[in-house]
Amino acid sequence: MKQIEWKNEKLYILDQTLLPLAVNYIECTDYEQVCEAIKKLSVRGAPLIGVTASLAIVLASQQSIALDIDSMKKYLLNAAHDIRAARPTAVNLMWAVDRMIKIINADYVSKKTLKEAIRNEAFEIWEEDRQLCLMMGGHGLPLIPDEAVILTHCNTGSLAAAGDGTALSVIRHAHRSGKKIHVYVDETRPLLQGSRLTAWELTNDGIPFTLIADNMAAHVMRTKKVSLVITGADRIALNGDSANKIGTYGLSVLAKHHGIPFYITAPYSTIDLSIKSGNEITIEERSGDEVRSFGGIFCAPEKCRVYNPAFDVTPGELITAIITDKGIINPPYIQNIQAVIGGLHGR
Amino acid sequence: MKQIEWKNEKLYILDQTLLPLAVNYIECTDYEQVCEAIKKLSVRGAPLIGVTASLAIVLASQQSIALDIDSMKKYLLNAAHDIRAARPTAVNLMWAVDRMIKIINADYVSKKTLKEAIRNEAFEIWEEDRQLCLMMGGHGLPLIPDEAVILTHCNTGSLAAAGDGTALSVIRHAHRSGKKIHVYVDETRPLLQGSRLTAWELTNDGIPFTLIADNMAAHVMRTKKVSLVITGADRIALNGDSANKIGTYGLSVLAKHHGIPFYITAPYSTIDLSIKSGNEITIEERSGDEVRSFGGIFCAPEKCRVYNPAFDVTPGELITAIITDKGIINPPYIQNIQAVIGGLHGR
Repeated sequence: MKQIEWKNEKLYILDQTLLPLAVNYIECTDYEQVCEAIKKLSVRGAPLIGVTASLAIVLASQQSIALDIDSMKKYLLNAAHDIRAARPTAVNLMWAVDRMIKIINADYVSKKTLKEAIRNEAFEIWEEDRQLCLMMGGHGLPLIPDEAVILTHCNTGSLAAAGDGTALSVIRHAHRSGKKIHVYVDETRPLLQGSRLTAWELTNDGIPFTLIADNMAAHVMRTKKVSLVITGADRIALNGDSANKIGTYGLSVLAKHHGIPFYITAPYSTIDLSIKSGNEITIEERSGDEVRSFGGIFCAPEKCRVYNPAFDVTPGELITAIITDKGIINPPYIQNIQAVIGGLHGR
Repeated sequence: MKQIEWKNEKLYILDQTLLPLAVNYIECTDYEQVCEAIKKLSVRGAPLIGVTASLAIVLASQQSIALDIDSMKKYLLNAAHDIRAARPTAVNLMWAVDRMIKIINADYVSKKTLKEAIRNEAFEIWEEDRQLCLMMGGHGLPLIPDEAVILTHCNTGSLAAAGDGTALSVIRHAHRSGKKIHVYVDETRPLLQGSRLTAWELTNDGIPFTLIADNMAAHVMRTKKVSLVITGADRIALNGDSANKIGTYGLSVLAKHHGIPFYITAPYSTIDLSIKSGNEITIEERSGDEVRSFGGIFCAPEKCRVYNPAFDVTPGELITAIITDKGIINPPYIQNIQAVIGGLHGR
């Protein structure tokens, strides 16, 4: 099952909002369709959004090929601006679009070479993301003891990245290496990425797991000998503060209380070297209907007030280590993130 | 809206599983129907289950009135046994049934006097519960500051008790006294007693509130200046350990981390003087389909393994105070619970 596919110069996006009930691909011929798919969470997961965004620019280059080269660049920069604004929290989106903008702004002898350069960069980002997943899985593997009981949140698998995923790549590596692991999967309200997506991926891979509601995590930590908590991230600040799916911060507090290690897994592109702390991260708020209703059925008074932040920020102090494609980053993050990741951006 | 009603010698139970979409009463002419309603959570909330259970014995006395008095008593004790077993965690159920058993076992000159005694005791339990709600609300009031931001979990209102509720009675008293409060309501997966029942009650009362998913509580505590957390309980041990709706324990850990007071509200009948700690409390596990599906629609792989404990235990150390109808009980609970409640049971 491919999370995204490129065929006949079109982008096909697996519609994750319908999983696991239906497997349906959204055919995208223009970048506006991709923006819509990102906003609606048809495609989600910080790394996968980055890859998808760069492919949206390829579509934009096809849409604008009839223009003269200056107008084409203007069109592409405008498209990049729209794509960048599709979601505010995950930095991989901005990171991928910024890489594409550099390509757009370079000098070219023809529209054809511009279009080719765009295409090459997007496909490089895509391939790179597959490799990053492998690297994260490999680096994280030693942190997973045999017979580990692992608690995870949201979806961090191949529905969140181009390859095996982030945190789920570590879990997959542990399983493939023969370690006997058991995973507790938070359902992850309101959009149930845990029960709909992670449970589906783990079922397909034959990795033993138990699904729980989010509010059961504390009880499970206390009664089920949880060895570690591992999640992904959408943006990591220089001090280690990490924005991730709503609920992650609570898990980090619970893990600390129970003396359980709490790991974040993310590629270097999730680390935002431009921000010193999580206070600078914009938290996306989504429609209250996501909480008020389920599958179109209202389960709360229809007009009641809802607060629906899509993310929260886990302070660096509560994170035992950050597993990246470059290796494991330990505290103090303010020194070690810069040391490990500093040179990699802006290349 | 009455949570239960007695009319023409029948018990009418408001079917809480259908709220807020439909207001429907289950007509009960026999105690078996009441057992079913308790098991299915058509009626729930520790105090209300106790009241309903005692009324089920009244139905059983009507069902068995054609028998001779000894056979009638045997029938009633058998019914009491079945009702007692309907749910394992909330002690109010056992407490109410045990009160009824005492009545059944007394000496009577006729079946008529037995039937009347049963009826009187059940109606006394019912009326007493209304009074207990008022007392809890009054005792808890001083703990709610003006402009308090309150976080609550599950439903502890007039859908959980015969009167205003337990924790919600305290909230109602604060609102009625003119304090400007705002309540954050956890939706309370898997059965959504927060979004379906508490949001509905607060809407009807005009008490300002915001609905959140359970996993947002930590983020809300950190960013929304939460003043206190207040919940109900299903069983309280001598050391203060309190079983309550799954998710309560996690909230108590999060409250401690954020320096926020955490209160439990319960009538004396929720305190189980026969157990020293929460380790002795049986935690009901319910069907995995409650987590796997919603409104009949599956949102997870249909056969995936699920852990669905209906309750967890909050250790006494994490409870700032227990608000009861007899007043506020402060730590050390091992001394103070016995002092305040010790003489009240077994009367």
